[in-house]
Amino acid sequence: MKIILIGASGTLGKAVGRELNARHEVVHVGHSSGEFQVDITDRKSIERLYEKTGDFDAVVSTTGNIHFGPFDQLTPEQFEVGLRSKLMGQVNLVTSGLKRIRSGGSFTLTSGQINDDPIRLGVSGAMVNGALEGFVRSVAIELPCGLRINLVSPTVTEESWGAFGPFFPGQKPIPAAEAALGYAKSVEGPQTGRVYRIGWSRDQ
Amino acid sequence: MKIILIGASGTLGKAVGRELNARHEVVHVGHSSGEFQVDITDRKSIERLYEKTGDFDAVVSTTGNIHFGPFDQLTPEQFEVGLRSKLMGQVNLVTSGLKRIRSGGSFTLTSGQINDDPIRLGVSGAMVNGALEGFVRSVAIELPCGLRINLVSPTVTEESWGAFGPFFPGQKPIPAAEAALGYAKSVEGPQTGRVYRIGWSRDQ
Repeated sequence: MKIILIGASGTLGKAVGRELNARHEVVHVGHSSGEFQVDITDRKSIERLYEKTGDFDAVVSTTGNIHFGPFDQLTPEQFEVGLRSKLMGQVNLVTSGLKRIRSGGSFTLTSGQINDDPIRLGVSGAMVNGALEGFVRSVAIELPCGLRINLVSPTVTEESWGAFGPFFPGQKPIPAAEAALGYAKSVEGPQTGRVYRIGWSRDQ
Repeated sequence: MKIILIGASGTLGKAVGRELNARHEVVHVGHSSGEFQVDITDRKSIERLYEKTGDFDAVVSTTGNIHFGPFDQLTPEQFEVGLRSKLMGQVNLVTSGLKRIRSGGSFTLTSGQINDDPIRLGVSGAMVNGALEGFVRSVAIELPCGLRINLVSPTVTEESWGAFGPFFPGQKPIPAAEAALGYAKSVEGPQTGRVYRIGWSRDQ
């Protein structure tokens, strides 16, 4: 399969690239690195990306920004960061990708656990992750031509524990390579409209 | 308790008003009717509303617009309807309400089942409802002074079945008075950060 990996230079993206490279042609895309660049907050930038990559079998996104901060100090502009980037940026990867994806292809987006398992300073991220869950479940029933879509919601990785660990007291981090398995399951498996929670459960 | 009911003239709002009026002072707010008016997409309009109402013990919102349509035809502007109104409009009712709510008070917002139990044309609504779930769970752990927040997620009401029934094949509608009980539970009960699903379960 030809897979467009967006966010390829991040901790998670690198692990997903390693997992998928073994069996597929992976096109590495970043904001400022990789074979191609994209600004996912800009629909025209996404359109230009797909013009350059040509048709593909899968889009995997491991990208999207969020502003973290205390709720009573979050400005409208700070809420917009998450809504424009991690939410509508990933949604627009799907909207524009529909014109280029081959029959039977798949989209795999990334959320995270904090909508169900909240952390300090995480309100904007919780909102965006919840929105992505609703989006993926709902759009899955509308996709034509056997197209599929799933969401991977990994916990904190060991590789990023230094930066994010303090916000996740008592959380057992996972190797990024383990989180990457969720993406392989989405791309290579038959399911659609699913949320793959890796390293945590919403029943905790 | 003094309760600010926003969306008071809607099917759900009227039932919630009837339920709460029996035991509380309910201030009825609408977009163009009620004792006071507000445009929840405009933060200044919300600020002006709360200046007029003065301090209160609870905010109950049964309002918020969404654009329904097929995913592959949804424009960015149509996605914005839900993000500006039902999502950030209800979020801003909380943000601005923090300055006026009394210690021990509560916020109760409204979502709906379609993020977990998707329907045709419902992608934007699914996104917004999921975002509201994440928001409420997360902000609940940040609210000071014993303040609480919950989300009511009712299924379709019998009163609105004529308009929405065709989008919910096989759904058993509920009387709006039954949906209203979720709001009484949120306002009068001790819980916070909860989603009250009325007339449906996400395990279906």
